[in-house]
Amino acid sequence: MRKEAERAIALCRAIATCSEEPGRITRRYLAEPVHAVHALLRARMAALGMSVRVDAVGNLRGVWMGRPAHAKRLLLGSHIDTVPDAGAFDGVLGVALALEFVEIARKEKLAVNIEVVAFSEEEGVRFGVPFLGSRAIAGKFDVELLALRGTDGVSVEEAIRNFGLRPEEIAQADSHPELDGFFEVHIEQGPVLESEDLSIAVVESIVGQTRGEMRFAGTANHAGTTPMRLRHDAMTAAAEWMLAVEKFVIEAKGLVATTGKIEVEPNAGNVIAGRVGVTLDLRAAQDESRVEALKALIGIGYEIGKRRGVSVEWHSKLDQSAVPMDERLTALLGASLEACGYPDRVMTSGAGHDAMVLAARTPTAMLFLRSPGGVSHHPGENVRVEDVEAALHVGKDFLRRFSSAIR
Amino acid sequence: MRKEAERAIALCRAIATCSEEPGRITRRYLAEPVHAVHALLRARMAALGMSVRVDAVGNLRGVWMGRPAHAKRLLLGSHIDTVPDAGAFDGVLGVALALEFVEIARKEKLAVNIEVVAFSEEEGVRFGVPFLGSRAIAGKFDVELLALRGTDGVSVEEAIRNFGLRPEEIAQADSHPELDGFFEVHIEQGPVLESEDLSIAVVESIVGQTRGEMRFAGTANHAGTTPMRLRHDAMTAAAEWMLAVEKFVIEAKGLVATTGKIEVEPNAGNVIAGRVGVTLDLRAAQDESRVEALKALIGIGYEIGKRRGVSVEWHSKLDQSAVPMDERLTALLGASLEACGYPDRVMTSGAGHDAMVLAARTPTAMLFLRSPGGVSHHPGENVRVEDVEAALHVGKDFLRRFSSAIR
Repeated sequence: MRKEAERAIALCRAIATCSEEPGRITRRYLAEPVHAVHALLRARMAALGMSVRVDAVGNLRGVWMGRPAHAKRLLLGSHIDTVPDAGAFDGVLGVALALEFVEIARKEKLAVNIEVVAFSEEEGVRFGVPFLGSRAIAGKFDVELLALRGTDGVSVEEAIRNFGLRPEEIAQADSHPELDGFFEVHIEQGPVLESEDLSIAVVESIVGQTRGEMRFAGTANHAGTTPMRLRHDAMTAAAEWMLAVEKFVIEAKGLVATTGKIEVEPNAGNVIAGRVGVTLDLRAAQDESRVEALKALIGIGYEIGKRRGVSVEWHSKLDQSAVPMDERLTALLGASLEACGYPDRVMTSGAGHDAMVLAARTPTAMLFLRSPGGVSHHPGENVRVEDVEAALHVGKDFLRRFSSAIR
Repeated sequence: MRKEAERAIALCRAIATCSEEPGRITRRYLAEPVHAVHALLRARMAALGMSVRVDAVGNLRGVWMGRPAHAKRLLLGSHIDTVPDAGAFDGVLGVALALEFVEIARKEKLAVNIEVVAFSEEEGVRFGVPFLGSRAIAGKFDVELLALRGTDGVSVEEAIRNFGLRPEEIAQADSHPELDGFFEVHIEQGPVLESEDLSIAVVESIVGQTRGEMRFAGTANHAGTTPMRLRHDAMTAAAEWMLAVEKFVIEAKGLVATTGKIEVEPNAGNVIAGRVGVTLDLRAAQDESRVEALKALIGIGYEIGKRRGVSVEWHSKLDQSAVPMDERLTALLGASLEACGYPDRVMTSGAGHDAMVLAARTPTAMLFLRSPGGVSHHPGENVRVEDVEAALHVGKDFLRRFSSAIR
């Protein structure tokens, strides 16, 4: 599959040239260069004998009919929007591989109908809300989203019209219940597979997430005249909590926690901090363990505050449940890994993906590819050709199993 | 001394009305309202029979001649500039009490000549450099300071001219070696005396100070896709160091350390911090223990960095030695406390004062008054009238001892 792998990578590199910014890859939802991406994909789809349309939220959708009469309908794809100064493979690789899967299905005459989708929006960059493309296909696009405005003052509705589409037709983007499954291939965007020297892994679940801020209020005071024993230092209270969070999740396992942002008042070298806010981003595949951990971490914060004479308040900002992938499809995919000679490594996705949204509509499975250096959302983002080959081998086997499995 | 104490407090309150900002006390070096302060002080000095001048850096100086022939010459006073949104007593109380000491010396016919000085600049607010007033009197005013410009674009030289003074006469502000001592009364600006229920204390030393920044460079990464074991989190490394600093100085005693300012990149809730800079403000009366502590704290930082795969660099910004007060004068002042029935509490000043600069020129002693609530550099800054009375009693006794002590 070396030829197919190289062709998929070349398509990703070609799509990467379609950018809003010279010298950087930046392609927000429905930006002008998306037309060029669609042209590239359309040409390829046409050559494969697919019928192509762009739905009202801008998803490019190409249908390949295998055996129309009774074959299953599988949706394949990923997103083509990017973060600013992005890499070439986040999302796009999943689209390029979907087209290779159509090539394979055609060559192998598989009993399956495939719809390839290039989701128009996943990153949430332009309007601050992610998954606009997959929401529409999953029938979960709230029309109130049309009124959202980006920093350029343009609304979602206007962006759709400016792109030449009709927002009033969004309901027709819904796939309705006619799909039999969705399969997304995506780069891992993390260092796990590389650290285990693995090419690919099955995603069994997309993590649930808690985001919030722990606010510490002590007493701002003179750094020179206030003895240590008379301090109520919000900074060292926050430091103690950050360390405790780290220790807790390392010991608890199955969790990641990040205290990535801190805001300090007055934030001056010669003044004991009076107020410190620290963000917590807590993720776990098991909602129960996440909820329990959060409870414990808040408790630890209160204990630290009480001991130090610093008041502590937890402010919750997001509480999102984990999304498990479909058990049957995931087992099928795992069988394909084993059949192709890869260890059936099952992992959790720490980031959100279109698969998370589609899972509410149709049985969904997801395959991760190693991210060299764990790098993503960065121009250095890359893939190894042998890992792409692995995904192609496994995908081919999966398509076979899927098409012949009992509905 | 209730009457004298109330008069001194009233003078502070009157001076507080001379401000650059309505409703707040803000009086920077040579700002317009300083003319009004000088007018208030001149009137009082004239009534006491003092000869008054304003030197070329703007210090108001009034001389009272007790027994001119052979009496000692004592400099008394403090500063009249303030931080923005200040209280009424920081600095100003020392000037108001100096005038009361002249009253006392006159009444008691003490064999001493007194020069009262209202230092023009101590806080360093307008030009970023403190002690402009006391530097000139101590013969330590570097003429290069004249070129300094504040945020309003005005230079020190221009500010001096605009105030109606002649910068070329700064050398004449120098007291030369004709002084026999300097005595400054100042509010503590910290909570120590209040916590011990004491009115006053003798300052034996002004702390030495180290300021700098510890910079941690880890790897910025995705908060969801990076497992705990593969992180190089600059934030938790910094947190561990901040806690270690706190623990170290509490155990070492005789030190205070503050990590008051933190700068984080990218400082986003869903990104593991890549770079974190934490300031360290370390103060001690003993230079040796400060230098040793600094060495240990840097070592702890490196150890934390090594263990976590985070690079660590110390950037020094200030390394100022402690300034001891004059032993003989301080002993004299201690004797006065005991004679007046106050415990001879000796303490260290954690903040810098004009006395620090004058100590290089003449034997210097300093007396602290309790700061209610430890509050200073804030509109809530206050003094208790009984503490001001205590300072007056002790000052009177000190003047007697000073005037009769062998030169």
